[in-house]
Amino acid sequence: MKIVLGENRYGKAENRVVRVTRINETHNLLDLNVSVQLSGDFSDTHLTGSNKKVIPTDTQKNTVFAFAQKYPAMEPEVFGLTLAKHFLDSQAHVQRAEVRLEQFFWDRIMVDGKPHPRAFAKNSSMKRVARVVVDRAPNNSKIAFLSSGLEDLVLLKTSDSEFTDFIRDQYTTLPDATDRIMATQVSAKWRHGSHEIDELEKIDFGKSFSQASSKMLSVFAEHYSLSLQQTLFEMGSAVIKEQPTIAAIKLSLPNKHHFLVDLSPFGQENNGEVFIAADRPYGLIEAVIERDDAPSSGYTWPTW
Amino acid sequence: MKIVLGENRYGKAENRVVRVTRINETHNLLDLNVSVQLSGDFSDTHLTGSNKKVIPTDTQKNTVFAFAQKYPAMEPEVFGLTLAKHFLDSQAHVQRAEVRLEQFFWDRIMVDGKPHPRAFAKNSSMKRVARVVVDRAPNNSKIAFLSSGLEDLVLLKTSDSEFTDFIRDQYTTLPDATDRIMATQVSAKWRHGSHEIDELEKIDFGKSFSQASSKMLSVFAEHYSLSLQQTLFEMGSAVIKEQPTIAAIKLSLPNKHHFLVDLSPFGQENNGEVFIAADRPYGLIEAVIERDDAPSSGYTWPTW
Amino acid sequence: MKIVLGENRYGKAENRVVRVTRINETHNLLDLNVSVQLSGDFSDTHLTGSNKKVIPTDTQKNTVFAFAQKYPAMEPEVFGLTLAKHFLDSQAHVQRAEVRLEQFFWDRIMVDGKPHPRAFAKNSSMKRVARVVVDRAPNNSKIAFLSSGLEDLVLLKTSDSEFTDFIRDQYTTLPDATDRIMATQVSAKWRHGSHEIDELEKIDFGKSFSQASSKMLSVFAEHYSLSLQQTLFEMGSAVIKEQPTIAAIKLSLPNKHHFLVDLSPFGQENNGEVFIAADRPYGLIEAVIERDDAPSSGYTWPTW
Amino acid sequence: MKIVLGENRYGKAENRVVRVTRINETHNLLDLNVSVQLSGDFSDTHLTGSNKKVIPTDTQKNTVFAFAQKYPAMEPEVFGLTLAKHFLDSQAHVQRAEVRLEQFFWDRIMVDGKPHPRAFAKNSSMKRVARVVVDRAPNNSKIAFLSSGLEDLVLLKTSDSEFTDFIRDQYTTLPDATDRIMATQVSAKWRHGSHEIDELEKIDFGKSFSQASSKMLSVFAEHYSLSLQQTLFEMGSAVIKEQPTIAAIKLSLPNKHHFLVDLSPFGQENNGEVFIAADRPYGLIEAVIERDDAPSSGYTWPTW
Repeated sequence: MKIVLGENRYGKAENRVVRVTRINETHNLLDLNVSVQLSGDFSDTHLTGSNKKVIPTDTQKNTVFAFAQKYPAMEPEVFGLTLAKHFLDSQAHVQRAEVRLEQFFWDRIMVDGKPHPRAFAKNSSMKRVARVVVDRAPNNSKIAFLSSGLEDLVLLKTSDSEFTDFIRDQYTTLPDATDRIMATQVSAKWRHGSHEIDELEKIDFGKSFSQASSKMLSVFAEHYSLSLQQTLFEMGSAVIKEQPTIAAIKLSLPNKHHFLVDLSPFGQENNGEVFIAADRPYGLIEAVIERDDAPSSGYTWPTW
Repeated sequence: MKIVLGENRYGKAENRVVRVTRINETHNLLDLNVSVQLSGDFSDTHLTGSNKKVIPTDTQKNTVFAFAQKYPAMEPEVFGLTLAKHFLDSQAHVQRAEVRLEQFFWDRIMVDGKPHPRAFAKNSSMKRVARVVVDRAPNNSKIAFLSSGLEDLVLLKTSDSEFTDFIRDQYTTLPDATDRIMATQVSAKWRHGSHEIDELEKIDFGKSFSQASSKMLSVFAEHYSLSLQQTLFEMGSAVIKEQPTIAAIKLSLPNKHHFLVDLSPFGQENNGEVFIAADRPYGLIEAVIERDDAPSSGYTWPTW
Repeated sequence: MKIVLGENRYGKAENRVVRVTRINETHNLLDLNVSVQLSGDFSDTHLTGSNKKVIPTDTQKNTVFAFAQKYPAMEPEVFGLTLAKHFLDSQAHVQRAEVRLEQFFWDRIMVDGKPHPRAFAKNSSMKRVARVVVDRAPNNSKIAFLSSGLEDLVLLKTSDSEFTDFIRDQYTTLPDATDRIMATQVSAKWRHGSHEIDELEKIDFGKSFSQASSKMLSVFAEHYSLSLQQTLFEMGSAVIKEQPTIAAIKLSLPNKHHFLVDLSPFGQENNGEVFIAADRPYGLIEAVIERDDAPSSGYTWPTW
Repeated sequence: MKIVLGENRYGKAENRVVRVTRINETHNLLDLNVSVQLSGDFSDTHLTGSNKKVIPTDTQKNTVFAFAQKYPAMEPEVFGLTLAKHFLDSQAHVQRAEVRLEQFFWDRIMVDGKPHPRAFAKNSSMKRVARVVVDRAPNNSKIAFLSSGLEDLVLLKTSDSEFTDFIRDQYTTLPDATDRIMATQVSAKWRHGSHEIDELEKIDFGKSFSQASSKMLSVFAEHYSLSLQQTLFEMGSAVIKEQPTIAAIKLSLPNKHHFLVDLSPFGQENNGEVFIAADRPYGLIEAVIERDDAPSSGYTWPTW
């Protein structure tokens, strides 16, 4: 028996890049949190402490900021592809580069009914995210695994949600609910089917993101829900149906419980009017919805 | 020398109340975090452990939820006044009741360009807040100290901000900045001048809140800033000027530093394009702006 | 009516200073979070944008780090006094300087039963804190207001805690509890009576801190509690009794509820065995315990 | 092309269980955060909204608390196995149950040099964690995948750490460091090789945890580090060497940077004395160390 180094990777996490693009008097703002992780032939530094093959995480950070200046108007996905390709190009022993990106949303401040050209407010708690993996294929060409998504989209509906007719065992006390609040905090990641970088770079990721997020919102609002699982499936499949380049979507939906407060001790009725929003515990519903002919996901989903 | 009980208070904090109001097919949503603190003749429980004069914090919680059902459509400020008055009315030894309220914002989900009547998304990171203190006057009448406000309004402007010509001492290394990013996370509390509950209840707090927050946004956007202090003063005084019932405003503005990244080692220029958003340390600028004839603030500002 | 600048202050918050002192092969570690706020004649920067009287927050940061090098082995309280005095000495228009300090605890790592001279683990979630205010007296001498304290000391006892015989009104549903879990997260600040800087600097703050924290722990453990208020009073008065230089102590004790879970639907008894630890809402008990002959607290307690 | 349901699971997350065991006058405290996720034949609820096969998350919560009463003195790993087995036993369509456990550490409060039998302080920020997966084998027997670990163990050493002789490319500005602070927040998960539940239940998990955590501490302290990667490998392999039942260990070590502050503008030297602790970005070093003859990891590591 020997003790050996298994899967490993390293990089610089949470580089907070703010990129201003100045077009005459109008400034655009791109606010990103960028994390890089590299895998490849890095066993020396683990086993002997020799750093001769190590690209310092400090250099990775510098690269992120230098590229942000060079490539001003990129979608997060394309910026991630560009960064990841660079690390494979710059050193032959880098097998795979992963770039994770979070984008924070800023709206232009409205002054007298008009958007201000250079002043912004962070109006949303939702983040746009992307995860890019570029891998070196056996023939030394590069292939990519790419997902886009959103996090922290908090939704609530006050009607059209049931949960009934479930298994009853010795530990069951929950009554059927034919009318309940349904609330969740959506984490959604959709993977783009192609692994060809050229093809991926042609996708209009901004448009794809808006379509996907709008679609999830409207399905959540309009779907009559028999379980959060069913709502999840409807939200996910609607996104895929609308966008042929999306192969699958992975949804993680906490069930943020809102309990009807018992006001009968005070002689008051509570007809779906007063709820307590609970913190913990919470339900957690997770699923992948996918095309049955989707290409393999490969390195798309994080396994770490 | 004796050891004595000084200032003291107690209550139930962070009651997460969600109130749904059903008007035919349209539901309204009020999402609050309500905290209650009572002061008065509570020395027995401290000194002897006798709880005969203690209104349990559990009862306070029940009262919050029961009142949420009874009084459905109140502004947070009025709901706070109603709760605070109740505690003084119910027990003669309650000298003072404080109610703090946080309101979370939900927008109706848009479906086919129309707001959905019963489905909501939490689109904002900004919170509306209020703090109500009702005190028993010597003649046993009740007077109030009331502030409204907002927290977590994150703003950024990419131009029209300088910071120059400051003191230089032996520990100064900062160069003058004639063009910098200015970013902050506004915490603003404005106090209403009157201490008469009847008068206060007549204020349209919803309108007052919108006016104050819009005004701060537009001043932040349009003001040419020589220091964050100057911006703070302009934002605060604009709010007071517009609303005669507001006596003072207290602003706490962190200076969320965005540092220009030095790209010269890589042969790249950085003309105000690429910044790193720093976490800590941060500047912190705090001030009260007030009318010179404002009535006394009394218990308005928290001292705990 | 005019709009005027009221109370105001500014500074650099959360300077994360790590100070290593090297005594031959043994290194000591002081890990601090230092925040500075200055008050005085700073109206120009608010009213006209002239920064001629502004000590930049960047300079304040530099000063904190430079002083950390100059004054290696100070207790947080003395380091705060030294910093605060400096700002009054360096500029005549600084009326008052506040320094807040948080100290994080590191233990030496034990190797073969012996403490390692240069390796540490952060074993505690408790923080030691201090708040120093140095004010310019009318005769231009300096006086100080100083409190020490701790935060995030989480305590729990499984016995010797009751809560009975409280007020019952129409909103009361809580039954008497003759045996309950009592848990809290102590925030304690004790103020030192003297305002003379020379006298304050003679206090052994390290010893004072250990005595106060040990005393609160043992009283919490041993006291038979009829209410959290009573426990609070006993904890606070024991600290004052033991240390004559302490004039008062301010305690803020959340009642972290642990609810007995009803297992009867499953045919199981629950004799004080299984509890659910709740997040929100929570009780919040706050009080000052003080000597009846204590000198005035002046600027000791934060009012912002 | 059809849209289909892929991998999916659901459960109740973050059940905060506090279990008191009373042995005469001495009480023991077990403080857990327990999360359950079930996989299996749950497609109906996604596709049709029929919940006939759904064990409600509320029932899962009840089961956690009921089992906490039934099985008082279990190690977290064994409690997780017991819970996971139950869900497979109770319903034939449950294919796999995952239980994640976090244990918070409480020390007995010392009074007069003796541990108090019923009063506790939460002295540590470190958490003990475990993840248990029980899977239904094709022959309907049950097999398990089990990892133990710790999180939030924060370590720092002031000497014996270098980082030199790394790749220099066009984006490199970092100088060699022959003497630096090394600090990290250890997340470690070690997997037990066996998949037989009977065998696993025989492991003394409490002893295994203490040995592993002590070993990591002492290696961190004593190892002369040429890179954080090397320290990681040494820490991990030392744990495996000592415990034959451990097949592999997965370490995630952020490099919590402490930058030497440049005091030369103030005429002061800084010989490794004053550092600023940075928040972001941070390095992130991750690796698995394993026996070369380890059985397959199967479902041990989370893939979601």
